[in-house]
Amino acid sequence: MKLINTAYKKELNQVNNLLKSEIIDEALIQELYSYIFNKNGKQLRPLLCLISSSGGSKKSSKRFELAAIIELLHTATLVHDDVVDESPIRRGLKTINSSWTNSHGVLLGDFIYSKAFIMMVKLKNIKILNELSKATNDISKGELIQLELIGKKNVSLDDLKKVSYYKTGRLFEAAARCGALLKENDKKYENNISNCAKNIGIAFQIRDDILDYSNNAKAIGKPVLQDIQENKITYPLYFAMASADLKDRQYFKNRLGSKISKNNKILEKVERLGGITESNKLLDIYIKKSISYANKIDSKNIREEMLNLAKFSYERTK
Amino acid sequence: MKLINTAYKKELNQVNNLLKSEIIDEALIQELYSYIFNKNGKQLRPLLCLISSSGGSKKSSKRFELAAIIELLHTATLVHDDVVDESPIRRGLKTINSSWTNSHGVLLGDFIYSKAFIMMVKLKNIKILNELSKATNDISKGELIQLELIGKKNVSLDDLKKVSYYKTGRLFEAAARCGALLKENDKKYENNISNCAKNIGIAFQIRDDILDYSNNAKAIGKPVLQDIQENKITYPLYFAMASADLKDRQYFKNRLGSKISKNNKILEKVERLGGITESNKLLDIYIKKSISYANKIDSKNIREEMLNLAKFSYERTK
Repeated sequence: MKLINTAYKKELNQVNNLLKSEIIDEALIQELYSYIFNKNGKQLRPLLCLISSSGGSKKSSKRFELAAIIELLHTATLVHDDVVDESPIRRGLKTINSSWTNSHGVLLGDFIYSKAFIMMVKLKNIKILNELSKATNDISKGELIQLELIGKKNVSLDDLKKVSYYKTGRLFEAAARCGALLKENDKKYENNISNCAKNIGIAFQIRDDILDYSNNAKAIGKPVLQDIQENKITYPLYFAMASADLKDRQYFKNRLGSKISKNNKILEKVERLGGITESNKLLDIYIKKSISYANKIDSKNIREEMLNLAKFSYERTK
Repeated sequence: MKLINTAYKKELNQVNNLLKSEIIDEALIQELYSYIFNKNGKQLRPLLCLISSSGGSKKSSKRFELAAIIELLHTATLVHDDVVDESPIRRGLKTINSSWTNSHGVLLGDFIYSKAFIMMVKLKNIKILNELSKATNDISKGELIQLELIGKKNVSLDDLKKVSYYKTGRLFEAAARCGALLKENDKKYENNISNCAKNIGIAFQIRDDILDYSNNAKAIGKPVLQDIQENKITYPLYFAMASADLKDRQYFKNRLGSKISKNNKILEKVERLGGITESNKLLDIYIKKSISYANKIDSKNIREEMLNLAKFSYERTK
């Protein structure tokens, strides 16, 4: 399946050139650039923004600026996230906090955030500013909620849904909404595409959680069972624990937050207790929601791009 | 000397009430509130904003909102700063990072930043948004420059000036400029008061650096010699090292970044080598600049408030 068609690939390149020219005026940042913007990211968020703003009469430069802003906001989140999770590696490269220090991670994240805000203000669109400032706040709220959940042995499905919406769905939603706001004043289109994107984002996160319990680490290109070792209960473990007996539940609780050397037993248990099946059911629900919103979009081109993204989020193995 | 007159004290109270109501809707934040907004802060930045916007025809609610935004931005900086410096205590209270974790500090800082941006957007004033987004970026630039300087045994006076402007002067400047922008469209007033505030801010920072080499820790209400122990060369040490012989310079270099149990010898050396005198001379220069800008302000009330602040920054012992 082809995630990004050639036209959007070209546009994303222009977005990346813009990012480079906006960010690289600082000597220190230049050195960090490749760590921050490595090319292994999927860039779904700027892509959403390009798709949702396509076909309008607006000059394309504004679209690229908006897409760059979205990618900057996302990047700032990742840089801070890596500090919070003490992650040594992201997308195969060492993180800022591990190559340099936590302090570099904190301050560089702030630098990137504020750079995004400077670019946002230049767009001179209060509705876009409003949506992006709220989205940024919601993302940090999601991170704080997740931080509160860490170490808790009992989390609710509602908690998990809140985290997947705030941490992932929210910026997908904002990217699509702001693209729509840039293009035209069409409330119906704005709501359809942003709701579609929001549900794709949540589905994307559920798929991510499922992949972390994959028994083929090589195929997904990153280590598995990260979440349980970071003391995080995500969907597969949540569902497995919900149907586990006392002994199995205790087994999982004991593994939360500890280093795991042998994966097989945990993976087998989560699978057997329905953790994967139930997560896939939930994934299905969000994908169906996203498809039903996509189908309400009038433009054939945009509709098909969104359906393609929904399909990708459903099937992706990386 | 009275820093804040009664009218402004009342207004600052309204700003603080607004902060409380804006921030406290989150349960987690509620718990952290007193750690974030403890009342021992001088609140010079929101005060500057109230002074500079005073006497206009604008509804006062906007002035309070702007002042609250400035205080939020400052607070977010402090929360992240404490993570970077690994500070256990600020203004006599335990910091977020020491009471909770570094992760709480990082995420709470982000939450406060983005809350400030939401409030900013509500003001619907592109000039103010422009100034505040740039100021926020400059502050993070200042922090990054300072981080790069840490551990360096040779820093230039230019480096130090850059850090004091970006880290401290910049938000003083922005607070005054935005207050002026809110009040009226008077470029001359805007430039005079923001330049005055900028120089007061830099002076404030120099005074802070001098107080860190005070031989009366009790009188200033906080421990001394923090900077040298955090491996930071500030003005007093810079000037002392500049006129030190090889042996004394080596003595200072050996103390940078290490725990200091006996203060007297260092304080005496810095003093004897002119570190305090030279820093005071520099302080004098910035205060004079700020006074000359203050004197160009037409409104007698505002002029006198600014002169009062300049005086305070020059003389303060806490």
